Amino acid sequence: MSKAVNVAIIGAGLVGSAFINQLKSLKNNAITFNVIMIARSKTALVSKSYSPLSLANWESDLSASTEPAGSFGEIADFLKQSPLPVILVDNTSNQALAEAYPSFVEHGISIATPNKKAFSSDKSLWDAIWNASAQPKGGLVYHEASVGAGLPIISTLRDLVATGDEIVKVEGIVSGSLSFIFNTFSTTSSTGEVKFSDVVQTAKELGYTEPDPRDDLNGLDAARKATIIARLSGFNVQSPTQLPIQSLIPKDLESVATGEEYMSRLPNYDQEIETVRQEAAKENKVLRYVIKVDMEANTATVGIEKFESSHPFAGLKGSDNVIAFTTKRYPNPLIVQGAGAGDEVTAAGVLGDVLKIADRLV
Amino acid sequence: MSKAVNVAIIGAGLVGSAFINQLKSLKNNAITFNVIMIARSKTALVSKSYSPLSLANWESDLSASTEPAGSFGEIADFLKQSPLPVILVDNTSNQALAEAYPSFVEHGISIATPNKKAFSSDKSLWDAIWNASAQPKGGLVYHEASVGAGLPIISTLRDLVATGDEIVKVEGIVSGSLSFIFNTFSTTSSTGEVKFSDVVQTAKELGYTEPDPRDDLNGLDAARKATIIARLSGFNVQSPTQLPIQSLIPKDLESVATGEEYMSRLPNYDQEIETVRQEAAKENKVLRYVIKVDMEANTATVGIEKFESSHPFAGLKGSDNVIAFTTKRYPNPLIVQGAGAGDEVTAAGVLGDVLKIADRLV
Ligand SMILES: NC(=O)c1ccc[n+]([C@@H]2O[C@H](COP(=O)([O-])OP(=O)(O)OC[C@H]3O[C@@H](n4cnc5c(N)ncnc54)[C@H](OP(=O)(O)O)[C@@H]3O)[C@@H](O)[C@H]2O)c1
Ligand SMILES: NC(=O)c1ccc[n+]([C@@H]2O[C@H](COP(=O)([O-])OP(=O)(O)OC[C@H]3O[C@@H](n4cnc5c(N)ncnc54)[C@H](OP(=O)(O)O)[C@@H]3O)[C@@H](O)[C@H]2O)c1
Repeated sequence: MSKAVNVAIIGAGLVGSAFINQLKSLKNNAITFNVIMIARSKTALVSKSYSPLSLANWESDLSASTEPAGSFGEIADFLKQSPLPVILVDNTSNQALAEAYPSFVEHGISIATPNKKAFSSDKSLWDAIWNASAQPKGGLVYHEASVGAGLPIISTLRDLVATGDEIVKVEGIVSGSLSFIFNTFSTTSSTGEVKFSDVVQTAKELGYTEPDPRDDLNGLDAARKATIIARLSGFNVQSPTQLPIQSLIPKDLESVATGEEYMSRLPNYDQEIETVRQEAAKENKVLRYVIKVDMEANTATVGIEKFESSHPFAGLKGSDNVIAFTTKRYPNPLIVQGAGAGDEVTAAGVLGDVLKIADRLV
Repeated sequence: MSKAVNVAIIGAGLVGSAFINQLKSLKNNAITFNVIMIARSKTALVSKSYSPLSLANWESDLSASTEPAGSFGEIADFLKQSPLPVILVDNTSNQALAEAYPSFVEHGISIATPNKKAFSSDKSLWDAIWNASAQPKGGLVYHEASVGAGLPIISTLRDLVATGDEIVKVEGIVSGSLSFIFNTFSTTSSTGEVKFSDVVQTAKELGYTEPDPRDDLNGLDAARKATIIARLSGFNVQSPTQLPIQSLIPKDLESVATGEEYMSRLPNYDQEIETVRQEAAKENKVLRYVIKVDMEANTATVGIEKFESSHPFAGLKGSDNVIAFTTKRYPNPLIVQGAGAGDEVTAAGVLGDVLKIADRLV
């Protein structure tokens, strides 16, 4: 009588490890989750017989393993013969794996993932995934953590659309590093004493940015998230680079070789953004780096916007994310806010998807 | 190959009508929803053969019907013989129907509802519902709209708990009328010119309160919602009246016969709450009427609290609801905010549940 699904996990880094530990600690669930594979880039633990792996010492077991993970094609072949319904958990940021999703899904393999790539690359991949999933035997695909980590953003937007609401505008701060940088640089009580380059330095030191902060400040990660939000809202985006993206990297520093050189030269460019900050402050506004999908204006943009000091985005704290859905039924927006990054909350977003998929499969 | 479920709707008032019209307008859904019953308190449309009712003119068809709805026992007997999986949508606020849930659910009938009663009455009813649902053939029970209408509150809290997060504190403003009253009475820029009784009068005129505003100001509706939130958080509440509830009705006016008399005498009591407001203002704080479940203090309370002007609750607008989940994984709370009442958003919350149940049933 007991219900069970098989789970195959690719990626056991920060999020992947947290995910496995959360799965291991699940309590009172009516469904049993049998992990049959844990793969890293070079090696893997695989239960060829589909009997559950023991998770008691999975980290040392995986470190000790010399078995190669196998190609994604080999993994698909293995999973599609699973005697139980199977959920593939992609905890990598791998583009090739994202591109292989349709080949898993068309064979009834479901996917839960925080990996943005599949949903924010060329539109043809997006279409291939959902077409495969819509087949009678297609697997289910959930990706809550691809935007805002564990925050209920994707599920909320999907519910709005599925129940027939009309999206008017979606605005959000979906980058933890850019949230921190602007929440610190431009506050309602700003005295203008803090320099942009110093704030970037602090963000880097606190671990909010990528090792080279330009990877956040170029806006591309935010543009990928905007692409996902836009597509779910019914706005067609062929590829994220097609969106108007405001890069925060001074032109001259785009091509400097290292993050260190970029950081050392950044103070020379503080005045430019300081001017923008002061202009906003004159209007009693603050600057925030936002994604914006405006269905009425038919635009999707990524960049700095000004907000009144009473606006919810102005009061944001730390590195929190926030997203505001303005719809026909919510002329005052429906707002979701909170930590939008971090291993534990991201893993919980993925685990929530796994639980929902399992509820539908068995 | 096409998937279908049967839907039986009890209650066709404000929310019920909006629900039926939204269901009728559903697009692109992979599942067909066949409505086999629409019942009001006296009359009903029933498809005895389980073939779908036409919704084209359901309002006039229902007005013209002389067929009685039948007892809840008769309805359960009818539904449990449905050839397709069936979802009962309870769009009433009927206590007796709420008490009949276990007798539906144990026969595999699923329920979607905005009716708080089933989840906020005696703990024995709560237990009976979830025990029936946990049986191998038990129906599913979803009640997103029982707190905050269409806002993702119940689903978010369930996900947090199911993925193993630990609830530390849940605080929320979950009454649209009390939200409006306090957002107007106590603002960050309060000049102290607005009287509490005038604000209640305005709220009543704008249709934010029940016909007799005491039905909101007694705090019982908020206490029912606190009960639901507390139980989902793992805090045991035997019955909502067991909670410490701060009533906003002056003692002397509790028993006056009519809402009119209450309203006419309310100005005599303005000074008391004005004093509280001024004390808060001295600390640069505002008053809000909140539900609070504090797992560490082991308390669940309903009443006025003070908030710093930078707190998200202080900036709330209109009659919006807001809820803040502080957990082990979200030491900075996860916040959901937006309209927490209204026919369309409530109906959308119910419809979202119906879609999720159907996804699990077929
Ligand atoms: N961390 C966050 O706060 C956060 C928030 C939202 C979303 N995400 C997303 O979550 C995902 C994981 O992030 P993370 O921080 O956990 O990254 P990470 O620590 O770099 O871990 C990535 C893991 O994927 C594995 N991997 C990469 N390519 C692989 C391949 N071809 N085959 C098998 N395994 C492969 C890596 O293997 P090795 O161990 O062998 O290197 C590593 O275990 C990313 O998509 C990220 O964007 C993260
Ligand atoms: N409106 C909101 O903003 C909102 C927000 C959140 C939750 N809710 C909840 O949604 C539910 C519906 O609210 P509403 O505003 O739509 O109420 P409503 O307009 O008063 O409608 C109630 C409906 O239930 C029917 N009904 C009552 N007892 C019945 C019985 N024994 N058998 C069959 N039908 C019965 C009534 O029948 P008649 O038509 O014959 O009177 C009426 O059609 C309530 O539980 C409410 O708390 C509402």
